Amino acid sequence: MNGLARFLPVLDWGRRYKSETLTNDLVAAAIVTIMLIPQSLAYAMLAGLPPEIGLYASILPIIAYALFGTSRTLAVGPVAVISLMTLTAASDIAPPGSPQFIAAALVLALLSGLMLVLMGVLRLGFLANLLSHPVVSGFITASGLIIATSQLKSILGIRASGEAMPELLRTLWQNVGATSLPTVMIGVAATAFLYWVRKGLKPLLMRMGLAARPADLIAKAGPIAAVAVSTLAVIALDLEAQGVKVVGAIPQSLPPLTVPLFDADLWQRLAVPALLLSIIGFVESVSVAQTLAAKKRQRIRPDQELIGLGAANIAASLSGGYPVTGGFARSVVNFDAGAETPAAGAFTAVGILLAALFLTPLLASLPIATLAATIIVAVLSLVDFKTPVHVFRYSKPDFAAMMATILVTLLAGVEPGVIAGVGLSLALFLWRASRPHAAIVGRVPETEHFRNVKRHKVFTDPRILTIRIDESLTYLNARWLEDYVLEAVAEQPRLRHLILMCSAVNAIDASALESIEAINHRLADAGVKLHLSEVKGPVMDALEHSALPSDLTGQIFLSQNTAFTTAMTLADAEDAAQGQSDLWLARGMI
Amino acid sequence: MNGLARFLPVLDWGRRYKSETLTNDLVAAAIVTIMLIPQSLAYAMLAGLPPEIGLYASILPIIAYALFGTSRTLAVGPVAVISLMTLTAASDIAPPGSPQFIAAALVLALLSGLMLVLMGVLRLGFLANLLSHPVVSGFITASGLIIATSQLKSILGIRASGEAMPELLRTLWQNVGATSLPTVMIGVAATAFLYWVRKGLKPLLMRMGLAARPADLIAKAGPIAAVAVSTLAVIALDLEAQGVKVVGAIPQSLPPLTVPLFDADLWQRLAVPALLLSIIGFVESVSVAQTLAAKKRQRIRPDQELIGLGAANIAASLSGGYPVTGGFARSVVNFDAGAETPAAGAFTAVGILLAALFLTPLLASLPIATLAATIIVAVLSLVDFKTPVHVFRYSKPDFAAMMATILVTLLAGVEPGVIAGVGLSLALFLWRASRPHAAIVGRVPETEHFRNVKRHKVFTDPRILTIRIDESLTYLNARWLEDYVLEAVAEQPRLRHLILMCSAVNAIDASALESIEAINHRLADAGVKLHLSEVKGPVMDALEHSALPSDLTGQIFLSQNTAFTTAMTLADAEDAAQGQSDLWLARGMI
Repeated sequence: MNGLARFLPVLDWGRRYKSETLTNDLVAAAIVTIMLIPQSLAYAMLAGLPPEIGLYASILPIIAYALFGTSRTLAVGPVAVISLMTLTAASDIAPPGSPQFIAAALVLALLSGLMLVLMGVLRLGFLANLLSHPVVSGFITASGLIIATSQLKSILGIRASGEAMPELLRTLWQNVGATSLPTVMIGVAATAFLYWVRKGLKPLLMRMGLAARPADLIAKAGPIAAVAVSTLAVIALDLEAQGVKVVGAIPQSLPPLTVPLFDADLWQRLAVPALLLSIIGFVESVSVAQTLAAKKRQRIRPDQELIGLGAANIAASLSGGYPVTGGFARSVVNFDAGAETPAAGAFTAVGILLAALFLTPLLASLPIATLAATIIVAVLSLVDFKTPVHVFRYSKPDFAAMMATILVTLLAGVEPGVIAGVGLSLALFLWRASRPHAAIVGRVPETEHFRNVKRHKVFTDPRILTIRIDESLTYLNARWLEDYVLEAVAEQPRLRHLILMCSAVNAIDASALESIEAINHRLADAGVKLHLSEVKGPVMDALEHSALPSDLTGQIFLSQNTAFTTAMTLADAEDAAQGQSDLWLARGMI
Repeated sequence: MNGLARFLPVLDWGRRYKSETLTNDLVAAAIVTIMLIPQSLAYAMLAGLPPEIGLYASILPIIAYALFGTSRTLAVGPVAVISLMTLTAASDIAPPGSPQFIAAALVLALLSGLMLVLMGVLRLGFLANLLSHPVVSGFITASGLIIATSQLKSILGIRASGEAMPELLRTLWQNVGATSLPTVMIGVAATAFLYWVRKGLKPLLMRMGLAARPADLIAKAGPIAAVAVSTLAVIALDLEAQGVKVVGAIPQSLPPLTVPLFDADLWQRLAVPALLLSIIGFVESVSVAQTLAAKKRQRIRPDQELIGLGAANIAASLSGGYPVTGGFARSVVNFDAGAETPAAGAFTAVGILLAALFLTPLLASLPIATLAATIIVAVLSLVDFKTPVHVFRYSKPDFAAMMATILVTLLAGVEPGVIAGVGLSLALFLWRASRPHAAIVGRVPETEHFRNVKRHKVFTDPRILTIRIDESLTYLNARWLEDYVLEAVAEQPRLRHLILMCSAVNAIDASALESIEAINHRLADAGVKLHLSEVKGPVMDALEHSALPSDLTGQIFLSQNTAFTTAMTLADAEDAAQGQSDLWLARGMI
């Protein structure tokens, strides 16, 4: 791949584009378009924005990603969690739906786009690592629960608000008396239908003789059926007069050209939410892209993905959209429908564009309860109660970080939730890194192997102590190393040789080097020699650039067995010399 | 050690106190007292506080540490770097020397004390690990340079201010015209004398036949001689009338009982500075305490040290002092003078108390230039240009973190310096942890050893790939693992068996486990089996609690050699089966 194609992957796949690929991409695009129309409207509504903004966010961003992204099949657009985060962040600026709110959503998209591009250019994709899998999983589960709960208001036809569970439940409870019966009937029917489409339609179609893939794709078109039927019901039965809220007039237009506000104060207030939203969006998108790429032994490049997603968000901010990312559901549909290149995305964009131009009048009588049903059924698949159980069984600290993320997200909202999750993961990691595993080892009789004295019957010598360090030595555990070694030495009064066995030490940083130097000096004060054994090649290479090899009171051995044997010989010789001087002393005293 | 003695170490050593120990402790206390008097006055002045506050900070805090601390010989009191940090933090509240400034210093001591005790109780001593050795070294060097520069004003007898170099140098340059000649003469003479006492007096005394230890202790009394001589010179020559600034009247009193202000706003503004100051003080103090304890094969307990230092700072806040910590110079003197228990500290406190009551009138004519000289000579020993050279040779990332700390501290001040150092160390650590070393390995011919294909001539099989991971697998490198493995797989189209060789993997957290599961599924989609080899005991124990052993498309092998041999056999069998079906296909077509 040449230099430019690295930054503009379209040059790579575009050059080799064939007519056969075109057919596959066009079919996939048609299917995804049908699925995207109701989803885009619904997610815009979830974000507190007018429905057409969901359509706008599904046009130019897809094309921008097609130019810059590295995944062949990722479908970019509005997604549930990012919509919720947009709602949360923009609500701090103005009430949902207001012009200031819409302007804040544009600024969020721009900021998020600029941050993603910057992170991509600086190759900072590794920052997304700060979100551990359990934290992301917990965050998405909790967000799914909040989203589903927030949509209950549209199913019931009442008002409710809040960014976290307590406020949502309180406002729902307060207004539950105002429930609109026809709305509930549409909402419950749509939810039940969509749930059945999701779970029961595909098996049914397959029992009726359809192959798995077309059955799956037909089932994916369920939402459009729900939209059509419920819209017709509203018109036929004049349910609007009976209090069923509908989407209303949607402007019939191309995406508008928008220029996000350049307001320093607004940018500052939205900077942290934009960063959180960018990282969550990136993590979600990259995992989807990686899963799909691996199925075809393709690869994505995470740093270039940052640029692709950044370009998509900048495009969203310039065309009346709001923050977008690679969505799981739509990408899987795109993949399953046979998309082969990002051109499928571009064709989808054209499809949505046509919808925005010509289909919107048909959507005026679409009940909001149907969109809420779409969202609820979609996000409930995000809620995952199995992973916490697995994580609990496997690792208690990871489980603690996950539960903290879930609880903080539910109780305080998405932003505190992400921050708590990242903070806790990092704190736990640093805590564990600061007290690694180490063992005092002895020689297994009749062998050259050394094992933990607490687990095996091994040979030791009171004049010699071998400590095996089971971790790289860094500044995080340098102090621990000093404590551990000096405590072990303090417990063994006859000690004269200490061996640090470094078979599992993959690196020693400058702080740890200094600690080893300090241990060396302190042990020298106490009359104990320090030896190292089984130092790995790269670690030894680095140590050659330090004063340690010459400062060391003892030696550096390739093998632990040689180290131990040599130390025994040295100790015997010292004992003999000591015995000699004791003898001289005794003779002198006679 | 019983439960209570763990938290009140005095119960342990106090019970076994003997009259011989008493003599040693009393001698040490007398020597330290003489050294501490000028130092305490000087550091209080450096912190922008009236000189007597330095004495007060050397009385009750020492006794509090003697009760709660675990070091036998650490001497607690005002130190240079903490005094500078106090000046910086309290200057944000009020001008130095004002009653509000003094009140802020008391609050800083209280907050720092409470934070240290809390960290000790919660066993959060590991947080001090966030400061890597190069960062601490760089910070102390830069602080030393700032302190020395700031004292030039007192040597020149002019005004200057600023918390960082640019402002300090600018104000010094602006006022250099107002230099007071007699002040410069005293200042330069005192600096030269103290420097000579430090470097030249001990060798001289030893050449005159004195033993090393008494020579060293006499040299340590140099500052008190400088104080006496310059005070007498001021009185005899009436230099005060010629513009030499003197300490002036110091109240003759016991330390006052003070109650720090309970002002929420003030506490909030001082919280971050207090935290930084606490951590820097703790790191400095613990390294001194560990160095001294190791010389006698004693131990200190870092979490209990937090409580000891916290108690000392709370005591400082209640007795008219300011933040304190364990100082290097005074602790070494205490140790060398033969102190055996914290009782020496308590006797020192009595000595300073007597000084505060009876000696202060003698200090009224002490020139401030002499105190500045004491500070300059003391802090120049903190400035260390050798460590950067060593760190540069050993590790470029550590050097980068160190230089950033030095530059930010010099240019922007101590607080940004500490924050930049911690942030950079952490970012570099996370960056390195997120892309660990791994190697594709092959079998060394005629052996069972596997080595890096890039470094050795080894045997490989295009159907089998072995990746050796040289690091524990955690959430920080889980995504890297997926990228690395999938890229390696994408490059080897005939691949059918992938072996992850885990000989250097000391832990696998829940995120990395999920990534291995994901790799397993993705490879299955691509028709590649995943095997693990050389999994360590504790890692295997943890994996037993997960679904991985049963989900794995391949097997878990104890030895890499068995894994490789088995994979070859499997691949041969698959090839044979494939050949068979190709044959059938060919026959069918005939």
